[in-house]
Amino acid sequence: MSSLTSTAVRRYLPDQLIGWATRILEKAGLPRTEAYIIADHLVEASLRGVDSHGISRMPIYVKRIEMGLTARETRLTVEREAAAFALVDGGNGSGPVVAVRAMEMAIEKAMATGIGVVGVKHSNHCGCLAYYTTMAASARMIGFAATSAPANMPPWGGRKPYFGTNPFSLAVPAGEESPIIFDMATSVVARGKIILAAKEGKSSIPPGWAIDAEGRPTTDPVAALDGSVLPVGGPKGYGLALLVDVLSGIMPGALFGPYIGDLYREFDRKQGLGHFFMAMRADLFVPMDEFLGRMDQMIREIRSQPRAEGVERIYIPGEIEAGVARQRRAEGIPLADGVVAELAELGNHLGVALPT
Amino acid sequence: MSSLTSTAVRRYLPDQLIGWATRILEKAGLPRTEAYIIADHLVEASLRGVDSHGISRMPIYVKRIEMGLTARETRLTVEREAAAFALVDGGNGSGPVVAVRAMEMAIEKAMATGIGVVGVKHSNHCGCLAYYTTMAASARMIGFAATSAPANMPPWGGRKPYFGTNPFSLAVPAGEESPIIFDMATSVVARGKIILAAKEGKSSIPPGWAIDAEGRPTTDPVAALDGSVLPVGGPKGYGLALLVDVLSGIMPGALFGPYIGDLYREFDRKQGLGHFFMAMRADLFVPMDEFLGRMDQMIREIRSQPRAEGVERIYIPGEIEAGVARQRRAEGIPLADGVVAELAELGNHLGVALPT
Repeated sequence: MSSLTSTAVRRYLPDQLIGWATRILEKAGLPRTEAYIIADHLVEASLRGVDSHGISRMPIYVKRIEMGLTARETRLTVEREAAAFALVDGGNGSGPVVAVRAMEMAIEKAMATGIGVVGVKHSNHCGCLAYYTTMAASARMIGFAATSAPANMPPWGGRKPYFGTNPFSLAVPAGEESPIIFDMATSVVARGKIILAAKEGKSSIPPGWAIDAEGRPTTDPVAALDGSVLPVGGPKGYGLALLVDVLSGIMPGALFGPYIGDLYREFDRKQGLGHFFMAMRADLFVPMDEFLGRMDQMIREIRSQPRAEGVERIYIPGEIEAGVARQRRAEGIPLADGVVAELAELGNHLGVALPT
Repeated sequence: MSSLTSTAVRRYLPDQLIGWATRILEKAGLPRTEAYIIADHLVEASLRGVDSHGISRMPIYVKRIEMGLTARETRLTVEREAAAFALVDGGNGSGPVVAVRAMEMAIEKAMATGIGVVGVKHSNHCGCLAYYTTMAASARMIGFAATSAPANMPPWGGRKPYFGTNPFSLAVPAGEESPIIFDMATSVVARGKIILAAKEGKSSIPPGWAIDAEGRPTTDPVAALDGSVLPVGGPKGYGLALLVDVLSGIMPGALFGPYIGDLYREFDRKQGLGHFFMAMRADLFVPMDEFLGRMDQMIREIRSQPRAEGVERIYIPGEIEAGVARQRRAEGIPLADGVVAELAELGNHLGVALPT
């Protein structure tokens, strides 16, 4: 879903942005392959309309790399391994690079044993989890990914942030239909949407999204960034956030809850983030054709269900994003003026001009 | 959380109810062990305050057994198996019996390989999922359980039920603290809470829980039972419900979505339900003591977080239910008059009087 409604935008072709971001990251000292993985990851998020996790993240990624808070080169260490699982030390590398390699390992393990689980510690912000679960769906597996995040959400009944917005994603392959790509923050909305609203100079966010630093409900994006987002469904979202911190933080021996370094606010320490990846063969129990055929049947049936008043179409998870991606691939990715200015400044700083 | 606020209740000791329910089920033709598993399961739910999934389910369980819609004896067939996973045909046995055995298999597999996944088809309503994930937590594993359910919830944007309230549960062991037991329906509330409200003669349920058969918001529990419950968090709950149907329905080759037989409304066919169970060793990545110690740390920190105005205590998932269970173990399980009348009638029917 595009959050850009303003007309003060410029449009960029995805390949332009991937090329530019790759060169920027190489200038910042990253190996070419890693630079490309990160660039592709961010532009893919922008393409799918997840602007909060897209190319707008470039300046902060580069800033942390230049400050030595994220390693220029990602060296993974497999600390523990068996047929069905592995623990990976991300070596404080770039989150998307660590995450791609960890999900690749989970997929390889699932090829061999049916299920592969990879825990990750010592990593950094890894962006949009759908990117990694889609890798599993492309390999005809059910993919699961979760990551803890810097504290921004209180436990249910509390007023001080303890958990991150702790998102998780699941992807499921289908036959003729597109895969189901589900990706949710355990907060009412991702903090990234509030960051973007503030960056775009929006005067308000919807009520119910956040509380301010004193625990009062707020619709001011800036006050919300000083305060906390709220868990979705109250105790349900709180429980899910806690469980993501168990899988991604406590289980792999990563930092958890309030101990995780904040991407945007703490420049004196690493993030120490953990992630959790799982891949499971879709044909674990029934033959692949049967599984994929039943997925197609369900997807088509859901889409043709009677609609509530005022609803034009029932969407399958991931379908809205896929539609935005088709449109943006053709028309270009719209970037708000504030984002363009930041990227242009980054381009000047590293001597790689942002394409016009 | 007890949903009983009326004073028109009687109290029963858990052992009384387990003994009575076991004898009733034996009279209905079940082997003693199976009768006991079901009785213990239902009384445990009542003890924990989950009255909607407790002893009040006895009449419908027995009715379906007597009509030949649920098998008297549960014979599991393992249709596919490898080190880390198995597909089980539940043989149309009683849901709690099938589920206990399937989770036992998942735990055994996790002992050997780290992770165990068991898919189930051809089963029936299996009650409260927390019961099964708690088995994993007791074995110092992280337990996951999901089950599809008869259609009662439309996809987001729809008005006709397609999904069940499709719950899932996760349990995590701790050290000195009690395990975390998380159990949520993907609807705003479990349909069982509306069934119980209707059974207890309550005149209204909170707004936002359900729509009526025409898709209009309703607070009338009877109209809500003819209509649909709504997904929690809108598209998020919808996506989760869909994914539960993938894991519990499509993946193991069970019925899914609207094809599942309704426990209370369809007496001309079996339910054809599927479930999904997973167990994962808590010490997959770090030594057990470290894992349990970090869980204790997190639990204690959450509990001592600053509270929002008017909040007396911050609860850990499962803690409220554990508190209710302690109280009810001592004071007895309160049953509303309507429930007592139904159980007494069942007792008369099978010649095992309900204790007084």
